[in-house]
Amino acid sequence: MDKSSLTSQPLVFTLSCPDQPGIVYAVTGLLTQVGANVTQSQQYRDASQNRFYIRLQADVPGGRATIDATFAALASRFDMDYTIADASPMRTIIMCSKDPHCLSDLLAKQREGRIPIDVVAVVSNHETLRPLAEFYGVSFIHIPVTKDTKAEAEAHLLKLVDDYDAELVVLARYMQILSDEICQTLSGRIINIHHSFLPSFKGARPYAQAHARGVKLIGATAHYVTADLDEGPIIEQDVVRVSHAHDVQELQAMGAEVERQVLSRAVRWHAEHRVLHQGLRTVVFG
Amino acid sequence: MDKSSLTSQPLVFTLSCPDQPGIVYAVTGLLTQVGANVTQSQQYRDASQNRFYIRLQADVPGGRATIDATFAALASRFDMDYTIADASPMRTIIMCSKDPHCLSDLLAKQREGRIPIDVVAVVSNHETLRPLAEFYGVSFIHIPVTKDTKAEAEAHLLKLVDDYDAELVVLARYMQILSDEICQTLSGRIINIHHSFLPSFKGARPYAQAHARGVKLIGATAHYVTADLDEGPIIEQDVVRVSHAHDVQELQAMGAEVERQVLSRAVRWHAEHRVLHQGLRTVVFG
Amino acid sequence: MDKSSLTSQPLVFTLSCPDQPGIVYAVTGLLTQVGANVTQSQQYRDASQNRFYIRLQADVPGGRATIDATFAALASRFDMDYTIADASPMRTIIMCSKDPHCLSDLLAKQREGRIPIDVVAVVSNHETLRPLAEFYGVSFIHIPVTKDTKAEAEAHLLKLVDDYDAELVVLARYMQILSDEICQTLSGRIINIHHSFLPSFKGARPYAQAHARGVKLIGATAHYVTADLDEGPIIEQDVVRVSHAHDVQELQAMGAEVERQVLSRAVRWHAEHRVLHQGLRTVVFG
Amino acid sequence: MDKSSLTSQPLVFTLSCPDQPGIVYAVTGLLTQVGANVTQSQQYRDASQNRFYIRLQADVPGGRATIDATFAALASRFDMDYTIADASPMRTIIMCSKDPHCLSDLLAKQREGRIPIDVVAVVSNHETLRPLAEFYGVSFIHIPVTKDTKAEAEAHLLKLVDDYDAELVVLARYMQILSDEICQTLSGRIINIHHSFLPSFKGARPYAQAHARGVKLIGATAHYVTADLDEGPIIEQDVVRVSHAHDVQELQAMGAEVERQVLSRAVRWHAEHRVLHQGLRTVVFG
Repeated sequence: MDKSSLTSQPLVFTLSCPDQPGIVYAVTGLLTQVGANVTQSQQYRDASQNRFYIRLQADVPGGRATIDATFAALASRFDMDYTIADASPMRTIIMCSKDPHCLSDLLAKQREGRIPIDVVAVVSNHETLRPLAEFYGVSFIHIPVTKDTKAEAEAHLLKLVDDYDAELVVLARYMQILSDEICQTLSGRIINIHHSFLPSFKGARPYAQAHARGVKLIGATAHYVTADLDEGPIIEQDVVRVSHAHDVQELQAMGAEVERQVLSRAVRWHAEHRVLHQGLRTVVFG
Repeated sequence: MDKSSLTSQPLVFTLSCPDQPGIVYAVTGLLTQVGANVTQSQQYRDASQNRFYIRLQADVPGGRATIDATFAALASRFDMDYTIADASPMRTIIMCSKDPHCLSDLLAKQREGRIPIDVVAVVSNHETLRPLAEFYGVSFIHIPVTKDTKAEAEAHLLKLVDDYDAELVVLARYMQILSDEICQTLSGRIINIHHSFLPSFKGARPYAQAHARGVKLIGATAHYVTADLDEGPIIEQDVVRVSHAHDVQELQAMGAEVERQVLSRAVRWHAEHRVLHQGLRTVVFG
Repeated sequence: MDKSSLTSQPLVFTLSCPDQPGIVYAVTGLLTQVGANVTQSQQYRDASQNRFYIRLQADVPGGRATIDATFAALASRFDMDYTIADASPMRTIIMCSKDPHCLSDLLAKQREGRIPIDVVAVVSNHETLRPLAEFYGVSFIHIPVTKDTKAEAEAHLLKLVDDYDAELVVLARYMQILSDEICQTLSGRIINIHHSFLPSFKGARPYAQAHARGVKLIGATAHYVTADLDEGPIIEQDVVRVSHAHDVQELQAMGAEVERQVLSRAVRWHAEHRVLHQGLRTVVFG
Repeated sequence: MDKSSLTSQPLVFTLSCPDQPGIVYAVTGLLTQVGANVTQSQQYRDASQNRFYIRLQADVPGGRATIDATFAALASRFDMDYTIADASPMRTIIMCSKDPHCLSDLLAKQREGRIPIDVVAVVSNHETLRPLAEFYGVSFIHIPVTKDTKAEAEAHLLKLVDDYDAELVVLARYMQILSDEICQTLSGRIINIHHSFLPSFKGARPYAQAHARGVKLIGATAHYVTADLDEGPIIEQDVVRVSHAHDVQELQAMGAEVERQVLSRAVRWHAEHRVLHQGLRTVVFG
């Protein structure tokens, strides 16, 4: 007798489709049929686009195998974009340069069990953070990048993504601009932290820009990376109050705290399948 | 021909019941059956209490009449506590003493269409705020309260609640303690703003208490009123940062801003049927 | 016997000058000499510009008369920009269009004694808010603006500023762009509220822009008006968290709350002489 | 020739004294006399207690030696409590139990140069966090505590404070209650993080208490430890928004983020000599 038919497996369903009556009824009907127990459910109806978004967490007896085919049929009927994911930690590559604060935070939170990721490798264009990665028992791979070796470096990165079967790439203050090609290849599964409250202060040296403009709050933005620099769909943002008395260096230090929190929240939500794409926007079932 | 059968009426359903599979399926099934279009839906499963909470907003052809009986049958089957409400503004009495900031905020927001209440009367133990009420065209009723007239004053208030058919009573810095009797009579439909971050600083003069304790944030709490002073279910709270440099009077001024925001959010959520009771806690489908 | 020599008058001194040793010593020495009692003092040294900023509040026996000449001499010695102000409320004209939320907040707070302004007139290009102004007993002046009458309208406004001896003009959601000339004439004493977190979403319809970009926080910015639209020195900013579920109209409603708070804080700080200019930035001694 | 007479040394002066005219004049006079350059200065006058507080940062030619005696004389004249500190990192012992989040944050920030402390030892009643301390190259000392060995354990701790010449002890989620004696011995130089927004939820299991009460914000409080449990002067507090949907375990995870931020801010401010005692309150020159 197959053991899997006896145990329930927690699955996460995310879907979006053109809005019409009966979607929830159909989905919950299917789940009821297979004896699933829905433990979390969130939905959002975008009236302006007439589109419906759902995230469901359910314990499904027998797991995916018992539901994959029937769900696919349902999805086809309602013209759904959908994913079904199990609860295993998301295989993740973190990229960084020299600043430790975001990397340190993600690795600490992974170890403390606060983010369901499995960091399979840390990749950097510098050797600086090797000891930090190794303290947490994570492979550290140094890929130097110069203007001439950029294409080669990106090919190396893509090979690592393949070799490690990575589902997510996190740019944890990785100070290199990626090519359009790699952005497209990794579309929807590469997250960046930008050290400003976007769309304010795109591009380089945002804290210097913020200081020059005299803003009273500084912020950070976690977003999916697209070919369009600093224009990808925003997952999370936050700010901290500053005053005239803070110089650029102090803004950086205060901002670093915001960056690490914003990035770790965004990575957690993504890894928990809480973030759905909605054109240039995101639906976050927090 | 009955016109109501041709038009859809927006209704809000709130319900809670013991958790079991199939609740959403059953509810959405019933709504699908009558041709209703669900426009908002939120749910919460309290695993520790094995209880399920839903709020649904739906356009229902024919309105309540077409669904009342079938919904009652369904509710009985699942042992639901439930309400069905239409979108008409909630008839509200606001009680105040001398401080204008909360009353002023609620009246301004009602007029601006930001809170779906219909303020049918302002009741106060002082004459101070009569001009404010009258500016907004609201009846002002002065009910003086002394130790000797308290019972009589409360009887008068209850009569006003009846006469005006008021669904909600808001204590907008009403500086009198109500009797257990009236708290019970109005249970679940009387909201107070307490000028502290409860459960810190219950009772009188919370800003003086906060100053003496040297806290670095002060707050306000909107809660349902129960016979147990300052212990009713919390609907909303917020805080503002303060420093050693603020004296009690400045704390009061800063706190007043928080009070008015917290109270107006709580009243709006209640009036939109977003607040469900969960013992001493509230489920807020914000 | 001259009574003024017997009573102390509270004065506020603000000054900035090239940094050098001995500034505080000299200023406090002068104040000690005339028997003044310093009740508040804040300072800021901008190391990058080598410039020093001070705000002092002091009870000065005999008032300004006893200190004006000696302070001027001191200011000259240290090459100071400075002001000396007494505690009388700042004469203020508020300009608005149709949205009541900022005007209503400023008028309510003036009456409650929370902002030391004396609103001498409300000026609008629409009649909409006349009843609100008149409720608070403030003169309402309707100056219609069309493309053809703009110059004339601004001339009228400037005449009102003169006639009323107004020290401050507040644009409380006044939906007209002012000419360079009037911006320069009123430079340093005209404050605007912009309904976004500047420099994000300059120009028109910022909430629609914010919604399209999918930001997770929206904000408001109070700033001095300069000829450069939405580029003037920022006095105060704040934000509120939003989600994918909020449409443009809800962003506007939530933003309105932030706008009124940000604007009233900025106006209060300006009226209390807490805001010093520092090029395109402000020093706020909050 | 004495080199110290040629170089300037940055010193921090903190003082409080009964308020009277001429304090700032006298202090800045003394500093001007020795050729010091004041780089930061903050003051606060507590009108209700008639007491004056100052923090001054100054580059003093020749360092402490040139000013110690004259400053002592001045302090005596004005009846000042005062300290003079140089810029060397504060020698600190961190105590913890099993939770890594606060310890990890402090050690990471020390290494990143964000907090001017020199962590001379980590002390714990468990072995759990030894690898974390050792990763950062910090001595880890295991002092088991049972009811019978408590006095002995505290004697050991005090000996370590002496041996390491520690200026500060930080309780980074150290889950033991200290005796009155050790609280008094270390008075003013021992900081605790309490995992609630004090004075709400004193004592054990604050997140469970917060959940039961249904609060909408949870917080953390860093305070000086006194014999009176959870009643010591508050240095810093912060909160995070929660909802009905968060169970106790989620409150703990969200609260952990707030705890580490609040504690690291408090430790930084203390180590920078920004926190002055004012009875049961603190003056924080942030």
